[in-house]
Amino acid sequence: METIRIPATVKGKTYKAAWKQCVGTGRIGLALQKEYLEALEFVQEEIGFSYIRGHGLLSDDVGIYREDRLENEIKPFYNFTYVDRIFDSFLDLKIRPFVELGFMPKKLASGDQTLFYWQANTTPPKDYSKWAELIKAVVKHFISRYGLEEVRQWPFEVWNEPNLRGFWKDADMQEYFKLYKVTAHAIKEVDSGLKVGGPAICGGADHWLTAFLDFCHKEQVPVDFVTRHAYTSSRPVKFFPHLIYQDIYENDHMINELRTVREIIDNSPFSGLPFHITEFNTSWSPWNPIHDTVFNAAYLARILSEAPDYVDTLSYWTFSDVFEENDVPRSLFHGGFGLVALNNIPKPTFHLFSFFAKMGDEELYRDKNLLVTRRKDGSIALAAWNPVYFGPTAATAEPPVVPKPKELEILIPFPKEEAFLKKQTINEDYGNPLKTWMQMGRPRFPSKAMVETVRQAARPHFSTYRLQTGGDGNLRLRLSLGKNEVTLVEITEINDETGTYIGLDDRMIGY
Amino acid sequence: METIRIPATVKGKTYKAAWKQCVGTGRIGLALQKEYLEALEFVQEEIGFSYIRGHGLLSDDVGIYREDRLENEIKPFYNFTYVDRIFDSFLDLKIRPFVELGFMPKKLASGDQTLFYWQANTTPPKDYSKWAELIKAVVKHFISRYGLEEVRQWPFEVWNEPNLRGFWKDADMQEYFKLYKVTAHAIKEVDSGLKVGGPAICGGADHWLTAFLDFCHKEQVPVDFVTRHAYTSSRPVKFFPHLIYQDIYENDHMINELRTVREIIDNSPFSGLPFHITEFNTSWSPWNPIHDTVFNAAYLARILSEAPDYVDTLSYWTFSDVFEENDVPRSLFHGGFGLVALNNIPKPTFHLFSFFAKMGDEELYRDKNLLVTRRKDGSIALAAWNPVYFGPTAATAEPPVVPKPKELEILIPFPKEEAFLKKQTINEDYGNPLKTWMQMGRPRFPSKAMVETVRQAARPHFSTYRLQTGGDGNLRLRLSLGKNEVTLVEITEINDETGTYIGLDDRMIGY
Amino acid sequence: METIRIPATVKGKTYKAAWKQCVGTGRIGLALQKEYLEALEFVQEEIGFSYIRGHGLLSDDVGIYREDRLENEIKPFYNFTYVDRIFDSFLDLKIRPFVELGFMPKKLASGDQTLFYWQANTTPPKDYSKWAELIKAVVKHFISRYGLEEVRQWPFEVWNEPNLRGFWKDADMQEYFKLYKVTAHAIKEVDSGLKVGGPAICGGADHWLTAFLDFCHKEQVPVDFVTRHAYTSSRPVKFFPHLIYQDIYENDHMINELRTVREIIDNSPFSGLPFHITEFNTSWSPWNPIHDTVFNAAYLARILSEAPDYVDTLSYWTFSDVFEENDVPRSLFHGGFGLVALNNIPKPTFHLFSFFAKMGDEELYRDKNLLVTRRKDGSIALAAWNPVYFGPTAATAEPPVVPKPKELEILIPFPKEEAFLKKQTINEDYGNPLKTWMQMGRPRFPSKAMVETVRQAARPHFSTYRLQTGGDGNLRLRLSLGKNEVTLVEITEINDETGTYIGLDDRMIGY
Amino acid sequence: METIRIPATVKGKTYKAAWKQCVGTGRIGLALQKEYLEALEFVQEEIGFSYIRGHGLLSDDVGIYREDRLENEIKPFYNFTYVDRIFDSFLDLKIRPFVELGFMPKKLASGDQTLFYWQANTTPPKDYSKWAELIKAVVKHFISRYGLEEVRQWPFEVWNEPNLRGFWKDADMQEYFKLYKVTAHAIKEVDSGLKVGGPAICGGADHWLTAFLDFCHKEQVPVDFVTRHAYTSSRPVKFFPHLIYQDIYENDHMINELRTVREIIDNSPFSGLPFHITEFNTSWSPWNPIHDTVFNAAYLARILSEAPDYVDTLSYWTFSDVFEENDVPRSLFHGGFGLVALNNIPKPTFHLFSFFAKMGDEELYRDKNLLVTRRKDGSIALAAWNPVYFGPTAATAEPPVVPKPKELEILIPFPKEEAFLKKQTINEDYGNPLKTWMQMGRPRFPSKAMVETVRQAARPHFSTYRLQTGGDGNLRLRLSLGKNEVTLVEITEINDETGTYIGLDDRMIGY
Repeated sequence: METIRIPATVKGKTYKAAWKQCVGTGRIGLALQKEYLEALEFVQEEIGFSYIRGHGLLSDDVGIYREDRLENEIKPFYNFTYVDRIFDSFLDLKIRPFVELGFMPKKLASGDQTLFYWQANTTPPKDYSKWAELIKAVVKHFISRYGLEEVRQWPFEVWNEPNLRGFWKDADMQEYFKLYKVTAHAIKEVDSGLKVGGPAICGGADHWLTAFLDFCHKEQVPVDFVTRHAYTSSRPVKFFPHLIYQDIYENDHMINELRTVREIIDNSPFSGLPFHITEFNTSWSPWNPIHDTVFNAAYLARILSEAPDYVDTLSYWTFSDVFEENDVPRSLFHGGFGLVALNNIPKPTFHLFSFFAKMGDEELYRDKNLLVTRRKDGSIALAAWNPVYFGPTAATAEPPVVPKPKELEILIPFPKEEAFLKKQTINEDYGNPLKTWMQMGRPRFPSKAMVETVRQAARPHFSTYRLQTGGDGNLRLRLSLGKNEVTLVEITEINDETGTYIGLDDRMIGY
Repeated sequence: METIRIPATVKGKTYKAAWKQCVGTGRIGLALQKEYLEALEFVQEEIGFSYIRGHGLLSDDVGIYREDRLENEIKPFYNFTYVDRIFDSFLDLKIRPFVELGFMPKKLASGDQTLFYWQANTTPPKDYSKWAELIKAVVKHFISRYGLEEVRQWPFEVWNEPNLRGFWKDADMQEYFKLYKVTAHAIKEVDSGLKVGGPAICGGADHWLTAFLDFCHKEQVPVDFVTRHAYTSSRPVKFFPHLIYQDIYENDHMINELRTVREIIDNSPFSGLPFHITEFNTSWSPWNPIHDTVFNAAYLARILSEAPDYVDTLSYWTFSDVFEENDVPRSLFHGGFGLVALNNIPKPTFHLFSFFAKMGDEELYRDKNLLVTRRKDGSIALAAWNPVYFGPTAATAEPPVVPKPKELEILIPFPKEEAFLKKQTINEDYGNPLKTWMQMGRPRFPSKAMVETVRQAARPHFSTYRLQTGGDGNLRLRLSLGKNEVTLVEITEINDETGTYIGLDDRMIGY
Repeated sequence: METIRIPATVKGKTYKAAWKQCVGTGRIGLALQKEYLEALEFVQEEIGFSYIRGHGLLSDDVGIYREDRLENEIKPFYNFTYVDRIFDSFLDLKIRPFVELGFMPKKLASGDQTLFYWQANTTPPKDYSKWAELIKAVVKHFISRYGLEEVRQWPFEVWNEPNLRGFWKDADMQEYFKLYKVTAHAIKEVDSGLKVGGPAICGGADHWLTAFLDFCHKEQVPVDFVTRHAYTSSRPVKFFPHLIYQDIYENDHMINELRTVREIIDNSPFSGLPFHITEFNTSWSPWNPIHDTVFNAAYLARILSEAPDYVDTLSYWTFSDVFEENDVPRSLFHGGFGLVALNNIPKPTFHLFSFFAKMGDEELYRDKNLLVTRRKDGSIALAAWNPVYFGPTAATAEPPVVPKPKELEILIPFPKEEAFLKKQTINEDYGNPLKTWMQMGRPRFPSKAMVETVRQAARPHFSTYRLQTGGDGNLRLRLSLGKNEVTLVEITEINDETGTYIGLDDRMIGY
Repeated sequence: METIRIPATVKGKTYKAAWKQCVGTGRIGLALQKEYLEALEFVQEEIGFSYIRGHGLLSDDVGIYREDRLENEIKPFYNFTYVDRIFDSFLDLKIRPFVELGFMPKKLASGDQTLFYWQANTTPPKDYSKWAELIKAVVKHFISRYGLEEVRQWPFEVWNEPNLRGFWKDADMQEYFKLYKVTAHAIKEVDSGLKVGGPAICGGADHWLTAFLDFCHKEQVPVDFVTRHAYTSSRPVKFFPHLIYQDIYENDHMINELRTVREIIDNSPFSGLPFHITEFNTSWSPWNPIHDTVFNAAYLARILSEAPDYVDTLSYWTFSDVFEENDVPRSLFHGGFGLVALNNIPKPTFHLFSFFAKMGDEELYRDKNLLVTRRKDGSIALAAWNPVYFGPTAATAEPPVVPKPKELEILIPFPKEEAFLKKQTINEDYGNPLKTWMQMGRPRFPSKAMVETVRQAARPHFSTYRLQTGGDGNLRLRLSLGKNEVTLVEITEINDETGTYIGLDDRMIGY
């Protein structure tokens, strides 16, 4: 058993919840749906993200860009019926849009290349001046409806993953820079205080970053922030019709990646520019069952703990399984990205986020399995985790490794003789709705009663204790972390009123 | 370990949920309060009682009986403002009034004897004809507002515990019979299809029952049902300013009592008359901490299981701690009767009721720790419990007995190879909000955050399993019942769709 | 002024609310949306339709039919994720699906002809046996989820308007009969108690009805009901990019049409077969501003009053402007079919329906401007209307006709000396949100404050009176019906308690 | 017809909504009730008061002060169970307590004099040190639960109307000063930043104010604000068992009264001290039908318009008819003080307040029937009113005066060619639920359907217009103010999009 001594204070060390800045969503058009909005309300109540980012704002289902064929001309028409309804909903739920500008409206597209089940057109505009007019019309409408003060707080990100052929025709870097330049100037023309950035690339293509920043510098194109994505799934990939499996890198792999990018930015002409990871997760596939597992939570814990050293935003992709990139979901659990499964059932990773939302600002201790913080009211909040990885490669190993719990003893200085401790845990047995659903025979379209049972299974284990500080002024906390466990411990002061109950004798009721 | 073999079927044996027929409430006037109504809504959603019964319908705070002093006369005025609001609320929540007619409006009272903090006047009417007019006016108003068909379903019970001096001046039996006779005739005069009964006595005075039935028979007074109360607390009582402790009889004590009363009725001229226990609980005091314990639940389980053999109604006293007989509650937990504590926190006994609400109609097996039923859809629901009694007397015994878990093996015939099992448990560690509140230092007026923690502590333990039937066609279920545990097990058929997921390989995600 | 004497009773004459049986909806996939469901909840609370019918159940956005490409075969996959969510919502709102089976899933389609902005494929199946398998799978799933008893109450209608080339390739009658036959047999194979019908044609093609019934008779194909549509817009049509105008027939035109169809059915081998108008309205275009006017309500009143003589169902097309056939709506009002506009604002026709929902079962009097009924409790409900038509043709007439109010005097026998009268009215000035929106400058994407003002403008005029019956035992009711007015009058008995207020003197407060 | 020219701007003239600062409530204990809280939520949504003030915080039903009899002593016990629930509710509804400290807990009382149906004890404390301890305990608890920053914003007012014998034994001024001194010091002892004031007298006893301020000055007793009440009912009073009638002074009577008090304060050693009218209304009786009339609204309009010249707070007594001073209400309307009647029906005076809540900060014009303001966004909001008084005295005059509407022409400078005008009106025919209820026969305990009809009758008349500015740059607004009418007019700019609808021709739909 490892013994860890927490210091009473660490000067100047704060815990920054970069993961709370933003969360991803399925295509923006899905935000018209009731189940989507219920899931978002639930997520906002329990976690409370600041921004939301998704694809498809300019795609045809949201319906902003239209053209009217009049006698002598074709006139653009900008339709804000749906986007108003959607952004109103977001702001009502106290979440702001992190505006991704894309994809291409059919009528503006230079080609017919599409991506996804919902047919996102991913070609450059056929007319950049019409594109610029569209961008200006959209931004002006936002300002007119929500006010300039509000819209200046919305980052505008140009396109998504242009370094991939599927997302941007031929993954043409120069064409993207052109798009970026036109778009950035259009936005700043409306108001110079608006924020614009890019290049929204996926991992493995960081030469784009260098080139992008050089381009902006040389061409004097405005850039207020840099964006990139980060997934930790590696090759090879095993594909099935509605299912894929992948190996996952160790969790320090992503942390190292982020540090590298931070250095790229700081070595560029834009040193210190805000750096937003606008998508991250384990796998980049919405059909990888890993997203539904407790492992996903236990694995990402370290990233939530350490990545804020390098990034300003770390946006989990995505908050809900209301999502359609590959197709309409075919079963309750199906490997979707969501923190929340269909029918508004929280997955283990939801609890990871809700646990980390309890962390304090003052960081007292951190290692690869533990984060200890103090909150403003003096109470202690700590999270501990124990991922046990069995990816496709490991899976073939014989015999399977039977993991032992990780035993920790943590000594925490506390100024009072006693403390109240509240502990919440997810692991293979608790907060694991996937397991219960598997036991039920994986019903694809479960009845309401079945859904209710799965929902009950999604609750973390809960327990409370009363602890005494020892002679050394420390609370001695022992944790036995099971397979893929994430545990939240909150320690608060006791204001004991027991003595005011006259005649009290707990033996009388069996204690 | 005990092994119990459940038969596949037992001819004609049904489980009758007499405890679901009715629940008690604090004085009717409290039903104007928001917290009261929220608790009732919660109870109705999770348990769903048919009737609700409480004191004080005719007391001055509900305000039905008033008098106007005109020039030459004093005229009664019947004010239904509050009672309409209250009964509307009840019916909206799908619970009907079990109408207790009492206590005495001041203006009609023959004396000034009062009971309770809220000053219920417990003297006979000073003018029986005015009383009869009042009863008729009330009943007619009910019919006018809710319809005759509805009101014929409401039992009218005359007074409460007239065999106690506090509740009825001098506990005068003949005076009560007079009151009963006048009241019963007044009701039947309005409509002969209305139901009236009594004598609503507490335990230990069953000679009243014999006398009452004889009286009704001889005087030809209508009687549609017999009512009585039942508490299992024995003497001596330890009193403190806001706290009392009592010994509790073994739980078969109440069952024997009820059997005896059933025999009294069946040996009277009214053999077979419906018999309603209109109040039951362990202690009769709203300041006995036993009501907040897991023991209270584990102890009463057997009564819920067996009492329906003898009674038609078994009405738990009461559904909520919104209650004022002794005073306004002075702390979150205070020994109140409620299934639900203040702030709408379910106590262990709430879960006892919600578990029993899952039982099926077909009784397969019963002993003093176990009830096994089959539901209409073929699924199995069983409850098991293990009360470990430490009353005031036992409490002084040295050394304290350390209880061991009760180990059961239950063999349940099941027609399929596999079954899905859902188990919910309360015991000293789960579904025990009292324990967490004690650890917090028993905050009398807890903050919202504290209340939230106590609420989380009130959830039962939840787990699910997949079971195989053995060669003998039985599921083999092992239960280890901890101290004061109550466990609900539900066993349902599996319609396995696992084979439809092409490429599925759970080893890939670590299973 | 016209004087109308209402008889005290008319033997055997009942008013049948055929228009309450069913209501139309935009494509079924829209039922996932929050605004759609809020509008439906509102409509159900105020009007309460029994069934809902819309296109696109089998289209790709609902996503039921999919195919998986395995190594050696292509396997159909039936995905009920969305349809379950949708039908669950319907049943929660106490409205049942009137199931229209269509359009063609892409993977099953024999061609690529599509209709509507949302690209409904309107070609026959390329493989009728796969189609039959799909139908059976869908119906079986419904039964498994909702129970046979429930699904037997859902009519299954085969396709939509096959007599139009846009809706059915080449408007091929024989191909439709084939589709009908295969579908009907597939349904009855699952359960012979299920109900199936067709041919869902639009008006102006009633030879299809004769041919269809002959076909069913000769080929012994099951048919449980006949369906057809009815719109009253005539030619010519004036088209603009997002707007059309049409002349409208007099309102007896539709009534005559329905009588004719009823005769066709009764002269066929299926005399007496239920006849459902599964779509009706004035214009068949979702971009005709007539739908937003008070005229639309005043005009349709007579049809609601008289059409039930001939039809079993009269389904208004549609309940809400959440609708996408031509495109996403481009402004708050845009000529959509809905009873309810975007943002859940009731249009005048909504109030027509909510007024008629107050009619009693006993019809006392009817003419082309008036319907008088008695309700079960003896109260009188009457509706009066005064459409003043100015269609495109009339619009060009000079000078415009200034309509005078229609003055009515109605003598209604009433058994008491006094009556309470409640009157609700819509006309050009009240319940006319379109007018207020026009005054505001027709804001396409109005702010929340603007929407609130339009919503206030949507409320009917409300007034109440106390009437005395004259010496002849009649209430004398005078109505002055303004342009396009619809008025609901409800007359109820008074149980006067004024005399119980001692000292009352209304002069003291200025009366 | 009177013509009024509104100036384009008036330097430095602001309209101060002193009436929005606070509202009165029935005894604080009623705030546990559901109907009370629903009414308060409704009032807060539509009007939005800052503070709420009522009697009985320290009375026995709220239950704060208790005593425990121990072996050797009697110990005070402070029970915050109910007050926490109540104040939590207030703050959730965004309304703060204006804390009235009273009345006397029985156990602390020096006598048994009580007032009201609910038996408020109105005698001095029998032990001032125990009283001081109580005050400190209460204030400390508030700070501990809600924070010092919050509680510093709560005014603490000592007692209620001590100048009346009913409210304070013998109306003993010196005894009150003693109470005030002890209380003020107790509060400041807890925190000197807390605010305390008095003497909460009713009208007609302003020598108390002078004496009170002199006392505070001489004795150096803290005083942060002065409080007083103001009712406009005069003598004689006609009493009936549940009804009273009174004459009402002209509405400038109260305005003059308030000016006088302001001068008294400013001539005292505490010149400029905040002055709060902690109760105002027409009649001081909860059984005077005037409160239910449209007259009450039209009459008070001028006071809302002008009183803010002299007072900082003008607290309407009370927000709801959930009120019990004389007895439980005996009928839907009964002359209660409430802005909102039982069943949450808004009375005319509710609309007076909701109309005035729309006024802007910039006052452009004011006379005794009109207030014109400009809002921050440049829009105009004006209120006009026309009270026609028929009190008991006038009522006997023969023949009754038939009032003519008051005709106004108002010229309002407006910077655009057109404007959108929204008008809301209450008068004898609209927003007058009392009238409809009278027509129904004044049902004391109306059915739900009756309540719904009365609720519909409570809606103001609503209309909208489009106005052109004339050549002089003015909008010409004509108002015809009926008997007891209050009208709100809001005038906003139009951003006209009509021209963007291609092909639009309103003649085609009859316009």
